[in-house]
Amino acid sequence: MKTGKEYVGSLRERKIEVYLFGEKVENPVDHPIIRPSINSVAVTYETANDPKYEALATATSHLTGEKVNRFNHIHQNTHDLVKKVKLLRLLGQKTGVCFQRCVGMDSLNALSSVTFEMDQKLGTTYHERFNEYLKYVQTEDLMCCGAMTDPKGDRSLKPSQQADPDLYLRIVEQKNGGIVVTGSKVHQTGAVNSHEVIVMPTRTMRKEDKEYAVSFAIPSDTEGLIYIYGRQSCDLRKLEESKIDLGNAKYSGQEAMIIFNKVFVPWENVFMAGEYEFAWPLVNRFSAYHRQSYGGCKSGVGDVLIGAAATIAEYNGVAGASHIRDKIVEMNHLNETLYACGLACSSEGQKTLSGTYLVDILLSNICKLNVTRFPYEIVRLAEDIAGGLLVTLPSEKDFRNPEIGKYVNKYLKGTEKIPTEARIRILRLIENISMGLGAIGYQIESMHGAGSPQAQKIMIERSVNIESKKKFARILAGILEEE
Amino acid sequence: MKTGKEYVGSLRERKIEVYLFGEKVENPVDHPIIRPSINSVAVTYETANDPKYEALATATSHLTGEKVNRFNHIHQNTHDLVKKVKLLRLLGQKTGVCFQRCVGMDSLNALSSVTFEMDQKLGTTYHERFNEYLKYVQTEDLMCCGAMTDPKGDRSLKPSQQADPDLYLRIVEQKNGGIVVTGSKVHQTGAVNSHEVIVMPTRTMRKEDKEYAVSFAIPSDTEGLIYIYGRQSCDLRKLEESKIDLGNAKYSGQEAMIIFNKVFVPWENVFMAGEYEFAWPLVNRFSAYHRQSYGGCKSGVGDVLIGAAATIAEYNGVAGASHIRDKIVEMNHLNETLYACGLACSSEGQKTLSGTYLVDILLSNICKLNVTRFPYEIVRLAEDIAGGLLVTLPSEKDFRNPEIGKYVNKYLKGTEKIPTEARIRILRLIENISMGLGAIGYQIESMHGAGSPQAQKIMIERSVNIESKKKFARILAGILEEE
Amino acid sequence: MKTGKEYVGSLRERKIEVYLFGEKVENPVDHPIIRPSINSVAVTYETANDPKYEALATATSHLTGEKVNRFNHIHQNTHDLVKKVKLLRLLGQKTGVCFQRCVGMDSLNALSSVTFEMDQKLGTTYHERFNEYLKYVQTEDLMCCGAMTDPKGDRSLKPSQQADPDLYLRIVEQKNGGIVVTGSKVHQTGAVNSHEVIVMPTRTMRKEDKEYAVSFAIPSDTEGLIYIYGRQSCDLRKLEESKIDLGNAKYSGQEAMIIFNKVFVPWENVFMAGEYEFAWPLVNRFSAYHRQSYGGCKSGVGDVLIGAAATIAEYNGVAGASHIRDKIVEMNHLNETLYACGLACSSEGQKTLSGTYLVDILLSNICKLNVTRFPYEIVRLAEDIAGGLLVTLPSEKDFRNPEIGKYVNKYLKGTEKIPTEARIRILRLIENISMGLGAIGYQIESMHGAGSPQAQKIMIERSVNIESKKKFARILAGILEEE
Amino acid sequence: MKTGKEYVGSLRERKIEVYLFGEKVENPVDHPIIRPSINSVAVTYETANDPKYEALATATSHLTGEKVNRFNHIHQNTHDLVKKVKLLRLLGQKTGVCFQRCVGMDSLNALSSVTFEMDQKLGTTYHERFNEYLKYVQTEDLMCCGAMTDPKGDRSLKPSQQADPDLYLRIVEQKNGGIVVTGSKVHQTGAVNSHEVIVMPTRTMRKEDKEYAVSFAIPSDTEGLIYIYGRQSCDLRKLEESKIDLGNAKYSGQEAMIIFNKVFVPWENVFMAGEYEFAWPLVNRFSAYHRQSYGGCKSGVGDVLIGAAATIAEYNGVAGASHIRDKIVEMNHLNETLYACGLACSSEGQKTLSGTYLVDILLSNICKLNVTRFPYEIVRLAEDIAGGLLVTLPSEKDFRNPEIGKYVNKYLKGTEKIPTEARIRILRLIENISMGLGAIGYQIESMHGAGSPQAQKIMIERSVNIESKKKFARILAGILEEE
Repeated sequence: MKTGKEYVGSLRERKIEVYLFGEKVENPVDHPIIRPSINSVAVTYETANDPKYEALATATSHLTGEKVNRFNHIHQNTHDLVKKVKLLRLLGQKTGVCFQRCVGMDSLNALSSVTFEMDQKLGTTYHERFNEYLKYVQTEDLMCCGAMTDPKGDRSLKPSQQADPDLYLRIVEQKNGGIVVTGSKVHQTGAVNSHEVIVMPTRTMRKEDKEYAVSFAIPSDTEGLIYIYGRQSCDLRKLEESKIDLGNAKYSGQEAMIIFNKVFVPWENVFMAGEYEFAWPLVNRFSAYHRQSYGGCKSGVGDVLIGAAATIAEYNGVAGASHIRDKIVEMNHLNETLYACGLACSSEGQKTLSGTYLVDILLSNICKLNVTRFPYEIVRLAEDIAGGLLVTLPSEKDFRNPEIGKYVNKYLKGTEKIPTEARIRILRLIENISMGLGAIGYQIESMHGAGSPQAQKIMIERSVNIESKKKFARILAGILEEE
Repeated sequence: MKTGKEYVGSLRERKIEVYLFGEKVENPVDHPIIRPSINSVAVTYETANDPKYEALATATSHLTGEKVNRFNHIHQNTHDLVKKVKLLRLLGQKTGVCFQRCVGMDSLNALSSVTFEMDQKLGTTYHERFNEYLKYVQTEDLMCCGAMTDPKGDRSLKPSQQADPDLYLRIVEQKNGGIVVTGSKVHQTGAVNSHEVIVMPTRTMRKEDKEYAVSFAIPSDTEGLIYIYGRQSCDLRKLEESKIDLGNAKYSGQEAMIIFNKVFVPWENVFMAGEYEFAWPLVNRFSAYHRQSYGGCKSGVGDVLIGAAATIAEYNGVAGASHIRDKIVEMNHLNETLYACGLACSSEGQKTLSGTYLVDILLSNICKLNVTRFPYEIVRLAEDIAGGLLVTLPSEKDFRNPEIGKYVNKYLKGTEKIPTEARIRILRLIENISMGLGAIGYQIESMHGAGSPQAQKIMIERSVNIESKKKFARILAGILEEE
Repeated sequence: MKTGKEYVGSLRERKIEVYLFGEKVENPVDHPIIRPSINSVAVTYETANDPKYEALATATSHLTGEKVNRFNHIHQNTHDLVKKVKLLRLLGQKTGVCFQRCVGMDSLNALSSVTFEMDQKLGTTYHERFNEYLKYVQTEDLMCCGAMTDPKGDRSLKPSQQADPDLYLRIVEQKNGGIVVTGSKVHQTGAVNSHEVIVMPTRTMRKEDKEYAVSFAIPSDTEGLIYIYGRQSCDLRKLEESKIDLGNAKYSGQEAMIIFNKVFVPWENVFMAGEYEFAWPLVNRFSAYHRQSYGGCKSGVGDVLIGAAATIAEYNGVAGASHIRDKIVEMNHLNETLYACGLACSSEGQKTLSGTYLVDILLSNICKLNVTRFPYEIVRLAEDIAGGLLVTLPSEKDFRNPEIGKYVNKYLKGTEKIPTEARIRILRLIENISMGLGAIGYQIESMHGAGSPQAQKIMIERSVNIESKKKFARILAGILEEE
Repeated sequence: MKTGKEYVGSLRERKIEVYLFGEKVENPVDHPIIRPSINSVAVTYETANDPKYEALATATSHLTGEKVNRFNHIHQNTHDLVKKVKLLRLLGQKTGVCFQRCVGMDSLNALSSVTFEMDQKLGTTYHERFNEYLKYVQTEDLMCCGAMTDPKGDRSLKPSQQADPDLYLRIVEQKNGGIVVTGSKVHQTGAVNSHEVIVMPTRTMRKEDKEYAVSFAIPSDTEGLIYIYGRQSCDLRKLEESKIDLGNAKYSGQEAMIIFNKVFVPWENVFMAGEYEFAWPLVNRFSAYHRQSYGGCKSGVGDVLIGAAATIAEYNGVAGASHIRDKIVEMNHLNETLYACGLACSSEGQKTLSGTYLVDILLSNICKLNVTRFPYEIVRLAEDIAGGLLVTLPSEKDFRNPEIGKYVNKYLKGTEKIPTEARIRILRLIENISMGLGAIGYQIESMHGAGSPQAQKIMIERSVNIESKKKFARILAGILEEE
């Protein structure tokens, strides 16, 4: 397994084409906007090398029998599923942001069972290919970007009905050695920090959308790939010398769009090419895993925000006020509910035909739908506790200024024993998570990552057995005889 | 194990003193107000005898190695804890009410570990006594009432400070053969349907409240015990000949207050007598188990209500309306969140010193706090879907009346294929759960059973590790160095 | 204006055909199930005769210049609209239930402006007829039942598409002297306590539904009318001798269904007969007024429940606990929000062509949509504060029983100075409003009265100027030039 | 009255000491960070000069009889109060941000009645002084900053108990010609854009805090005043050339802290100097007015966000989806509830002794408490509708880049007819309000401006007549006789 340092070093070897603020980035690894997001991924490597977390952060490969980073592991039982959630919570606590590596993990696991079932039904040989690829990923300890979401254009139209046929990524040519694809994937978490890009379709496909039913993996610096970095709230603060105003100076998340410009993919890396009836199972399983993930990582970030709120309450001298205590209990209550849902869909996981364990699909959707709601209320409560200073604080430069720094220091002091700087720092962290760089991961990603709330509602409707519930009711009401 | 019939028969053998509507009830088993609540308990016996549910509803005694009803089983691992939740959901679905047997189950499990730890610390021999008692309960397959809540009088005062010293149950005399107790226990779920009453203290006790730190078990028809039946919304409908208006004609819950009038308890049945420092652990563990229970039974009753709402929507011809579908998804979402919390606190359970498994205390409190909220919203949505007819329906007698029955039949018809009677029946079931007899269990018990919401908030505050969260925040904010 | 006594007396003169529990009621006025609902209406008469409330409860007729009961007044300005809300809040506080007279008030006001506009457009003479009728109602100080809701059958079908054409009330014959109608109106609040029944259509009508576009007024004992009394949660308690268990012994609401069996209506009482394009305006205006009403009456009942919760907190010795105080603040907050919405739609009322003032339609729908939510949360909080005794209390008969009454008295005592009976009484009042007789008015009527929530959502969608909002956004985003 | 241009010009004449990012700002008026906030204030001048808005945006001075900008008007009746709310909503719609001028308006109105009552009770002459000052403000059409919030230090300590006595602003010296004050005011909305600073105490004062009970007005460039500009989410985007990424390029809010360094105030500008018993009335009235304000301005900004959400739904091709329509209805519902509360506390306003009209204090607190909640849910719904692109969008510079701009343009297109740029612009506007510069005003100011939620809860507890509610309940429960 790679160390954190080795991971960062390995990123330098790629020839990756990245654009940011309208300019090509020569050295993404050391770019101040990008680096904090690399640091977050690095923690997934460091933790796996920390003996304290060995049981949580590593696993034994079912293919090679070797110890691998859990992020590249295929779940072999419900304990693996539960440990995943606990690992993600831990990493959320350590970074306070999205550490970007779950998407790849969830893609690998989804492909693991779906390729098996495709082969069973269609006589293809995707599963073996996939296992070869997986061995490579596990052995090299690679960071994979899971690329699912297409731009989608007009959402009321299917892929093949769009004015521009590229608005969903598609096979534009089949060659002897492989396929050629064109299109784009958007909202690509951690894409620029990845070794590999694993592409999957984004929705149910029908026969007429056959060319869009495509899944494959390629190195992130494959020719024809262009990454355009997404800009985020407060990103420019990373360019400042003073770091306090960032709130969380070391870590951040990352979102990018990837352009696929006639990209060639060799057959050994192709896991679906036209088998449209398996597009939905792949989407569905990936989504289920990823909706589970959020019960872990988001409750970890929630812990940070709760801790920050409790700290500022202490610094303000109000930690004992009953309404403050009640709000912190409520934040914890909501946060633990997310975690409980993440655990429940894991411990109720089931073995699929390939042997890979899948989470309980209904409960993972329940988990995610709560994730689209509770972090918002937790943020609201944190902002309530933080006080108005959260958004009226002068900059660190003012605090350091020889003329006026003394006033900032004097007047922004809270309780006597706490230095003003500590109070400023904790407020900036709350700002980061509630409306700055951290808010992208904690709020909007909570809303839309792994599918928007309506997608979860649809899955809940499909997954519950409403007929059995109607039967319970009709029996008790005396309309139906009990069997 | 007893069959349902044997259970009902065994109740007749007791000489139990019950008052209802100001009158002594000679034959509680056949009293129309009481009987439906006995039917609900009987289902816990029937299910255990149903081969289909053997794995869920029975277990192997860790004392005798015999198959026992799960309600009398001591949890030996997290699977037992998970199965408990699933069993309770099943029974909620089958009865639509509180089936009353969890209180005893949770009392037995709490006593199992606490008596062990008392003995370890104090050199007492309560655990052995308890195990003897447990064997008896398991072998005879008894229904136990768990009696915890004292009347409490003025809640701002401690037991020994009350104007009337009996407002908490207490030892009034110690004899050679045992103790004599006086007091009352209120909100006694299923008390009149029990073979045994297991008494526990209701709160933390201090030295000055020593006489109140008392736990024991006695047969429910012990001399000196008086049961006063609690009256409930719509209880008088049970006395009517027509049964449709009941909504759920077969099943109901039961609440009673028990008066302890100088009741003698032999030493072999005493599990605590003055060891005040163990009052809180006993309360705490019982509460944790019972807060877990609600993640099962209440989601089962929730299934019934969801099924009833889906049925009436169909009968009204609006099942396909998007706002109706959305509301049913929301009801399911809330209901499954309760279940997920019940599962999570179970699968995260831990072994105690005695070997008995205890649920995760934080998560079981999270579960219960959600239970104090979501059933109310589920009811609100059910009432929304049901329509105003829910409370303007004429009585069954009007429907049967030769003069006007035809009008009721004609004008209260919904979609063409569904008989009016079916529509009336399903509306009455919704009425039952939302404001009638079922509402006691589904709403107010959800609020106050196993402790009122503020009790859960206090436990959440105590159980979360707020200092570690503050540390995560201070590290990320740069106030504290990472270790 | 009639006194309360005169009102009750006048009811005896009617030959009204009422069925209750499958039997014809000879003397509805003195029937113990019905009488409390008459008492509530009587308060609307008594208040108008109380000099203290003259400004609120009476008004000057714009037709006769005489002082009339405000319930029969046509709003002449926004002050009238505001006073209506304040009067309804007062009556809610005095009765704790639905006092049933707003439906008539809102029907009269809606007809006042719609008949005027019909005449203007179609050259009919409905407005004059209506004014003659109004003078009669004002002079005789009559209680009018506003009858709008048809049974509706299969909700996915229009009136003329139903399997049974009578599922919406319709004109079955036109005669020289008037029309003959057949059908039913359901959810008829206060119908049995009325002198007059004012019928209106229940929805938009199209040409093919012409015969269903009908509005008229008739005495409540007109031949062919049959009233079937709706049964309600806990109604049988009214038949008991002991009155404490009722919670609110003096007052209740009332719902009935009315059968119209070939009922003849003379032309002078007909206000619409086939003018289908005015069905919707009439429904819309009535609904707007009635949605306003709820901002008054429901906040009045809310006051009672808040007062009851504060009282039981005091009796339990916990009035000073911070979480209790917080909950009572929250109950007040929600309750006052309803009131604020009621006031706002009134003070923003506008003059219609007839001179009658109409509430702001958007804001009255906002008011009502909040009413479908907040009373439920207020009830939930009241149940939280009340404690479990709310549903485990023995009956009054047990309390009065010579054998066991002493135990009830001893053990259900709260703080020392408050008699147990007072504690029982206040708990029964909370039970009444949260799940007993009062819950019908405070909860389900809040949900469905004046239209179910979806009806308000549709009106909100129609009433807001979404295009202007999109314009504000596009201008600020730089997509559109500011004009 | 000044025009917008004249206002901006007049700001240049001040010699104001402003610090921003650690540097002294020589020309605040043209500083790209500051200017958008000046533009927002300018709209309050422009609107008053627009004949279309004359009735709303201007009023007749009760002192001079001249037409004045409504922001400098003293409310003479409830119509003035209602018009204020409507004006603020209009300006919120036009700017999408906080336009900063209400604080001064609310300060002037609060001082108007409180100085009158001080004089009545204490025989002082503050009211005359104040009226002279008001005439000057009205005639010159000045922008006033209302300075209330002190830094407060340790919130568990009173002003005179703080380790640093300056943590609340105080009189440090009394001279012949006036007073000398030292301290700071934080969260000063629009301070740098003001001509005048009106200082008020921030809380109840007792005798020992006498020197802190001080109110006065001074020109914003008085010697000894230093302004330190607060930094805000995404502020650096204002420094970029490309303006699309700002979302709202023209307008923003402004927060600053003001340092008072031994500032001399002549007696004619002093409105309170030690009359500690009037500190609370002044705070209370200012707060009541300011809590009313939010019912107007925040619903105006809400309109912009709703419009933006409806626009992006259209651009994405999902405007007709039932769940999208439902969310937009919900956003409107919440937004109009805020407005309704603003209107209600206005139309229920009362005349004070001085003749100045004061809002209904209970209802203005209800209004504000809703404002601390609903904008957060409106934002959550807007983010739901917007989709993940909200936070993954590349920068405008990428869009303009000759190499990759074409890809951004191609792949971020929504429905066919809408240019990609329009879609980007509307998403940036939503980002602005939900987490960027606009979020400060729409969310955190909604939470803490005019007092944090707990302050409103305390006022609601004090303002409701809980005893009368308890009486209603006890009468209906039969505990108390009706009078």
